[in-house]
Formats: sequence, C-alpha cells, structure tokens
Amino acid sequence: MTADSGSPDLRTGDLVDAVGATAGDLARLSINQETVKQWSLPELAAGCAGLGVPGVGLWRAPVQEYGVERAARLMRETGLQVTSLCRGGFFTASDPGARRTAMDDNRAAIDEAAVLETGTLVLVSGGLPSGERDIAAARERVADALAELAPYAAERSVRLAIEPLHPMYASDRCVVSTLGQALDIAERFPADRVGVVVDTYHLWWDDRVPAQIARAGAGGRIAAFQLADWVTPLPEGVLLGRGQLGDGCVDLRGFREQVDAAGYSGAVEVEIFNPALWARDGAEVVAEIARRYREHVL
Amino acid sequence: MTADSGSPDLRTGDLVDAVGATAGDLARLSINQETVKQWSLPELAAGCAGLGVPGVGLWRAPVQEYGVERAARLMRETGLQVTSLCRGGFFTASDPGARRTAMDDNRAAIDEAAVLETGTLVLVSGGLPSGERDIAAARERVADALAELAPYAAERSVRLAIEPLHPMYASDRCVVSTLGQALDIAERFPADRVGVVVDTYHLWWDDRVPAQIARAGAGGRIAAFQLADWVTPLPEGVLLGRGQLGDGCVDLRGFREQVDAAGYSGAVEVEIFNPALWARDGAEVVAEIARRYREHVL
Repeated sequence: MTADSGSPDLRTGDLVDAVGATAGDLARLSINQETVKQWSLPELAAGCAGLGVPGVGLWRAPVQEYGVERAARLMRETGLQVTSLCRGGFFTASDPGARRTAMDDNRAAIDEAAVLETGTLVLVSGGLPSGERDIAAARERVADALAELAPYAAERSVRLAIEPLHPMYASDRCVVSTLGQALDIAERFPADRVGVVVDTYHLWWDDRVPAQIARAGAGGRIAAFQLADWVTPLPEGVLLGRGQLGDGCVDLRGFREQVDAAGYSGAVEVEIFNPALWARDGAEVVAEIARRYREHVL
Repeated sequence: MTADSGSPDLRTGDLVDAVGATAGDLARLSINQETVKQWSLPELAAGCAGLGVPGVGLWRAPVQEYGVERAARLMRETGLQVTSLCRGGFFTASDPGARRTAMDDNRAAIDEAAVLETGTLVLVSGGLPSGERDIAAARERVADALAELAPYAAERSVRLAIEPLHPMYASDRCVVSTLGQALDIAERFPADRVGVVVDTYHLWWDDRVPAQIARAGAGGRIAAFQLADWVTPLPEGVLLGRGQLGDGCVDLRGFREQVDAAGYSGAVEVEIFNPALWARDGAEVVAEIARRYREHVL
C-alpha cells in the first residue's frame, strides 16, 4: 500500500497483505469515524469493509446528514458492525428548558442507535454550566438524566455508556473524569442498561484504573473499549491532540490485557482526534492503525 | 489604587485601604513570585511588604540570580516570610547519570530553602522519561529519591512537599497526579519530613479530594496550600492558563474551609501562571488578588 492509494479501491484482504495481519488479528478492530473524518460515510464503509476491518464507530452529525435509515442500510450491505454511536449526554444544565432540550436530543440519539443496530450509545456528561462551581451537584444531574433515559433506551435494546473524559475536560465538557466516578453512577442502574467506556486516552494516568477495570468487568459494565495514545505538547483547547497508537506513552497492550482479563470480549475501537491523520489518505491511515494495533495492542 | 500606581511606592496599609481588608484578613496571604514575575525580587519584597502581604513563595532561578544569601537578607529586612521555595523534584529519570544530577540539584535546593528560612521545598515529581510507558515504575522512583533526600532535608529543617499536578501534566511534568497518590508516597516517611501541597488548580476536579484533605490533615501532612482558578480554553502546552481567583469554576472558599477543618493554619499562597497578569502593573495585580481573596476565599 502506498500513500497515494485511493481509499475505496482497496479490496478485502489488501490490508491483511499490507500489514501482515491475519483476519483473526483484526476480528475485534473497529475504526471510529472521527479518526478518518476526511472520509464520507460511503468511503468509510467501503474503506473499512474493503480493508478487512469489521467494525466502525459512528457519529450522529455525519449519520444524520447522510440519513439514519440509509446509513443503517449501508452498514448492513457492507457487512459492518456499528460498535458504538457517539454521542449523547450533555446532561448538566440546571436550567429546566435546556434540560428538556437535552433529554429530547438524547431520546433522538437512542432512536438513531436503535436504527443503526448498535447496542452502545456513548454519553459525554457535559461540563459545569457557566458560573457554577458545584461539580458534585452537576454529577448528580447526570445520574438524574440517566434515570429518565435508561428505560427508554432499554426498550430499544440500547445500552447507555458513560464515558469518563480526562480531568482536563471537567469544566467545559465532562464532569465525569474517572472510571471510578463513571462506575459509581452506572452501578445505580442494571448492568444491561448502563455501562461505561474505557478509553485509554482519558484514563491512562490513573493508578486506580486497574482496580476499576476489574470492578467494571466483574459487574458486566464495560460497554466499549477505545484506544488513542497520549502525546504532548497538548494543542490549544486540548481537544485535537490525541496520538496515533504507539506514538505516545500509554501502555496500550497493558490496557487491552486488563480489559480482556476483566471479561470484555467486544470491539476495540480506535478513536483518534488528530488533524495530522485527517490530512492524509484515509486508507493509508487505517492501514497504519492496523499495523500499530498489531504491534502495540494485540 | 489605580492601574498606573508605581508598585514599590505603595506604603503599608495602602492595600488595606484599597481593598477594604483588615490586616487580619491578609494574615495568611502569600504571593508566589511567579504570579507577579514582572517584578524583580526587590520589587516583590517592597511591593508585598508595602501592601501588607506578609508572605511570599519564591522560585529558585530568580533567587539564584539575585543571590541566595542576599535574597534571604532582603526577606529578613522587609519582614517577609518565605512560605515555600519552588522547586525541587524531577526524580523520574531512569538513567543513573541523570538521576545523580537530579539528586545533586535537589540537595542544592534544600540548601537554598534552608538559607531562605523556609520550611517547605515544593517538589514536582517529573514526567515519564522519553520512550517509557510504565508510570507506576516512575512513581516508585519518586519514592526512592525521597528516601535519599528526606534525611538531608530534615537535618536542615526543610520539609519536602510533594505537589500533585493535574493529570494533564502526567507525561511530561509530574507522574503524581492526585492528592491520594501524593499521600501514598508521603506516608512512607515521617510527617515532619515529607508533606504534600494542596493546590486548587490541580485538584479541583477530583471527587476524592475532600476525603484526601481530611487524611492529609489528620496526618499533619499539609505543607502548603496554593490557589489558582480553573479557566478554559486551555492554551497550547497547558502551562500558562491559570485563572485569577474568582474568574473560574473552582470553589476556592470550599477548599479553604476543608483545609482549615483538617487543621491547616499555614499560609494561603496564590500561584497563578498567566501572561495577562504579567502584562499588568504588579501592585495592581496584588491588590486585585487581595480583593479576590477576600471575596472568594476568606
């Protein structure tokens, strides 16, 4: 595979040849849509299916733009499993009107997940509303929202997956910062209704994570496992600085082994927000991910 | 006080008049040198003493440049207490040569702290060495270094203060990210030799902090209490984005009450790295801090 290979022209097995992986090696690999957002949804489907990647994680905005039913059909036709839908959440508003709007939007997200036949809706909790300083109260509002949404999601066979984000996002994006906090909330609900996301980028620094992964696994709470590496310096706004697998300091294999040992056997989804990857050919990026996955994760 | 007031010309009591504070209100206030780094050391001493601020936190580089003995004399002459010296640490090198260099440098830092008659040397542990992925091992090297340094420091009446830094610095600056981790290390040593720093900027997001502050207080481990607020967006490199007191989302008063309730009665040191503050008149900045301190902390 060369840097200028046209992405959707690659055929099944090309990736296997290119990276020296067997189909079994890639059996759990999923590519999150945002990792190769230079691709349209049809390019993503053709590219991943053609390259032998069996799963994709999707985002609501590009799916809505393409059409939710149409996207679901595309996934079925290309044989791709939708391993997660990103994202619901943003539950922390204290204003009643903003709160109702958020709940309506989350019910729509659950409906979309059901159409896409994914069992996992990823939730980013939301940050502290402007002017507020009570983060514990904001976390309680997350739990309140889940109590309202979990039955609706369960009726549609969708599990809500609380994603703890790195503490650097606690004020403006997600008041749930550790796997322990996510589990403290999730465990108020049945395990088949509310789970957690284990994302290496957000959790790698925390010495309590091994114990919390074991706790999550024992309770059947691991709804998704996502990979990105940690690299510095962080860019302004700290959102788009995630590293390609192997470029940073995260013990990715150690994480995968812990998650496996905890009983998780689902998809391993690669979600990297990085403009340098977006500037490259999509198929080249996915092939590189598959090589790095084999080298640093399997 | 006006924006163009010359900083060292203010006299004792001016700040009290300007902010409506009484001298008792400011009795615990300390200004970290880096907060007003536009000031030379004599300007800092004259400015703080003149404004009625009884304490300063100093940094090694500007003190060395001015002369350590000379700085100590200046502090004595202006009646200022040196509440902490920043900083020792950077203990995580695995290379033996780099490690020896770090230990020599830390012994020099302890000597300087002793000359400045401060009982508190702040330690920033250091990040993960390039290419390494074992953060637990790096944290163990921090404990190893403390075992070597603590007796040397104790002989000079200097307490080593482990500062947990926000997890966004874990890879490149400080592998000790939570107050719990800092205490886990500190508690291996006598409380009068190794303590911890409670800094609101680094710890505000952590739901375990109230319990850890109580633990630290019960063990007599709180060596320093530092304030900065959390504001977003974070700048590139995430080092210089700390907020003036009251500008962000940290419950500063809640922190101060918890630290007090845990038995801490020492200095409350304001340490804000922010280019917008550095661009202003130093005395104006300190007066603003005193007002904000009264409004948001006392």
